[in-house]
Amino acid sequence: MTAVDVPAGSPFGPENLPYGVFSVGGGAPRVGSRLGDTVLDLSALLTEPDDAVFAAPTLNPFMAQGPARWARVRERLTALAGADLPTAALHPVQDVTLHLPVEVADYVDFYASEHHAANLGRLFRPDAAPLLPNWKHLPVGYHGRSSTVVVSGTDIVRPCGQRKTPQEDAPTYGPSRRLDIEVELGFLVGVGTGLGDRIPVEDFAAHVFGAVLVNDWSARDIQAWEYVPLGPNLGKSFATSIGAWVVPLAALAEARVPVPGQDPQPVEYLRGGEDWGLDVDFAVDWNGEEVARPPYREMYWSPAQMLAHMTVNGATARTGDLFASGTVSGPERHQRGAFIELTWGGAEPVTVKGEERTFLEDGDEVVISATAPGPDGARIGFGEVTGTIRPAR
Amino acid sequence: MTAVDVPAGSPFGPENLPYGVFSVGGGAPRVGSRLGDTVLDLSALLTEPDDAVFAAPTLNPFMAQGPARWARVRERLTALAGADLPTAALHPVQDVTLHLPVEVADYVDFYASEHHAANLGRLFRPDAAPLLPNWKHLPVGYHGRSSTVVVSGTDIVRPCGQRKTPQEDAPTYGPSRRLDIEVELGFLVGVGTGLGDRIPVEDFAAHVFGAVLVNDWSARDIQAWEYVPLGPNLGKSFATSIGAWVVPLAALAEARVPVPGQDPQPVEYLRGGEDWGLDVDFAVDWNGEEVARPPYREMYWSPAQMLAHMTVNGATARTGDLFASGTVSGPERHQRGAFIELTWGGAEPVTVKGEERTFLEDGDEVVISATAPGPDGARIGFGEVTGTIRPAR
Repeated sequence: MTAVDVPAGSPFGPENLPYGVFSVGGGAPRVGSRLGDTVLDLSALLTEPDDAVFAAPTLNPFMAQGPARWARVRERLTALAGADLPTAALHPVQDVTLHLPVEVADYVDFYASEHHAANLGRLFRPDAAPLLPNWKHLPVGYHGRSSTVVVSGTDIVRPCGQRKTPQEDAPTYGPSRRLDIEVELGFLVGVGTGLGDRIPVEDFAAHVFGAVLVNDWSARDIQAWEYVPLGPNLGKSFATSIGAWVVPLAALAEARVPVPGQDPQPVEYLRGGEDWGLDVDFAVDWNGEEVARPPYREMYWSPAQMLAHMTVNGATARTGDLFASGTVSGPERHQRGAFIELTWGGAEPVTVKGEERTFLEDGDEVVISATAPGPDGARIGFGEVTGTIRPAR
Repeated sequence: MTAVDVPAGSPFGPENLPYGVFSVGGGAPRVGSRLGDTVLDLSALLTEPDDAVFAAPTLNPFMAQGPARWARVRERLTALAGADLPTAALHPVQDVTLHLPVEVADYVDFYASEHHAANLGRLFRPDAAPLLPNWKHLPVGYHGRSSTVVVSGTDIVRPCGQRKTPQEDAPTYGPSRRLDIEVELGFLVGVGTGLGDRIPVEDFAAHVFGAVLVNDWSARDIQAWEYVPLGPNLGKSFATSIGAWVVPLAALAEARVPVPGQDPQPVEYLRGGEDWGLDVDFAVDWNGEEVARPPYREMYWSPAQMLAHMTVNGATARTGDLFASGTVSGPERHQRGAFIELTWGGAEPVTVKGEERTFLEDGDEVVISATAPGPDGARIGFGEVTGTIRPAR
């Protein structure tokens, strides 16, 4: 029996206790939590009948059990965090393989940062108002590809596709020349709904299990050529990376902040309820150099508004649905969560390790990390979402 | 033992043999085929070791077995169609419940009819060229919501959402006032790919299992307000109905026709290969009156081009992926596969059972059916995809 040693200032203290899926030495993937730099094997530590969900290779069965179970398991984990535990159920995090934590059902990507939407409007439509007429009335979003949601650490092969610059008469085919990131926060639905049901803003916590880091890789040249009128498709669908750790909503209680204020007032189904934002601080490292610190607290639409909007037409929600915030960008240049904004469409390079850079080159590595305030000055860590660019095939 | 009686001229003769999932009297859903007006219980008739897939509640396990298995099973079914069969394995089609035949992985909806795209361009953007600059260079498409793909016969609850006419200053919330259909043909992926792989146009038949009717219900007022710049979302995500019968590609050999001709020539990955269209004739019945006969042979992009485009960036394909053609519309008014086109945005009503009608009213029923040429003058039936509109909740 061993008590887990948590380094001082760890963002994975006993106030966090995120969930993930791990394996050791070729064994079966199963559910774990993280305490300091140790992975707790929940399939070994929790052995009541309902705990069979922790032997599953995804969080989906546990997420489907609902908020009363989530709260009870969190209480038991909190107790375990201070106790002596069987050594065989504890693994140094560097010894485990972390897997995609959820089987993603539908994936919807929103566009909830006013700063990001206005910056992209200025870049893509320089002669028009930066925000489109619908933007302050509803959380604009679209469906992404679920099959290409991959776990942090997965290599990203540079996508090929059609690109056409305004100077060219016709498109050409080839590897993307404007490969970019989008720093986002994702939310996972645990408890779904039936066809025709809605999830009002006040019911958010009855359905949403937790939050996860997202990097929505984007090929800007492919996207720019394809996206009118049906939205992004191939420019996004090649890969979306998510973090290996899902932070439960309960760990984010201290991080809740008001959204910045909505004017005009949205229509009724988007008002009131669980209408909080989150004070999550992101950091973006490009080949080891920090290039941006996007602040989630600046996001215009709340997570509860996104979910209420997504289901207001009666669309079914399912266990494993992932909805992401869209790029997190603040008002300052160093707060921009995409390289197209940070370098103003490539016109204003940033310096990375002494080199002027605009978009991603083969071999580049991006590491996005984030923390949020926890109780008593602690920080709640989301871990990181990383990826290295491999040459086009 | 009984020989199945096939009515003369049945579109479900032995040259068709589509696949579906059925149950009888509260029993477990399992895989069947249709011969005339009889459902053949494949879980009872086919009993080799690999045939366990026919006891599954979806076609996915069978679809994953690949084209050599599909061909072998079709040979065996063709032999059974002329033989005496155990009566217990035969069910009159009116006695069975038909289920959603597949577990849908990702759902992508294309926009492959030039007539439809041009008509919608004229209606939505009257002051600009009807076709956008990218349209003849790539099959434009977007991801739809997989969770709301439902089987033919499922009631459609009128969706609520935000609508704003050009005359209004701000959007209002309420039931859609412009509820519409889209007549489409869908294709189901049986054999998927890994992350980073592509499906060239010549490999279509190695991956695609068959075709199915699709009605992509559309709330035009919700769609018009939300769709710029990220494409359709709530205006589509409330429901997409598909037929209960999946027609295997092998049954459509006689229906192959050249696509109408592509000018300009598309870039290389969209050229050559399995570049055929299909001579499928649709009929649309609105409350029992035929209002349109959309011809699939007019579609600009081929199914093989759609799949090649969808994966050219290395996006993973999975068993159960559904990709649909987009609205099938021909050059003539009575060939338009959406009411917004048929009634020219509501300005030119059609007469349905003596009443002037534009969009769908509560209680309306839509039945879309289709057939294609088979061998020796036979017709290959897709069955029908039906839905009745229920009032908004």
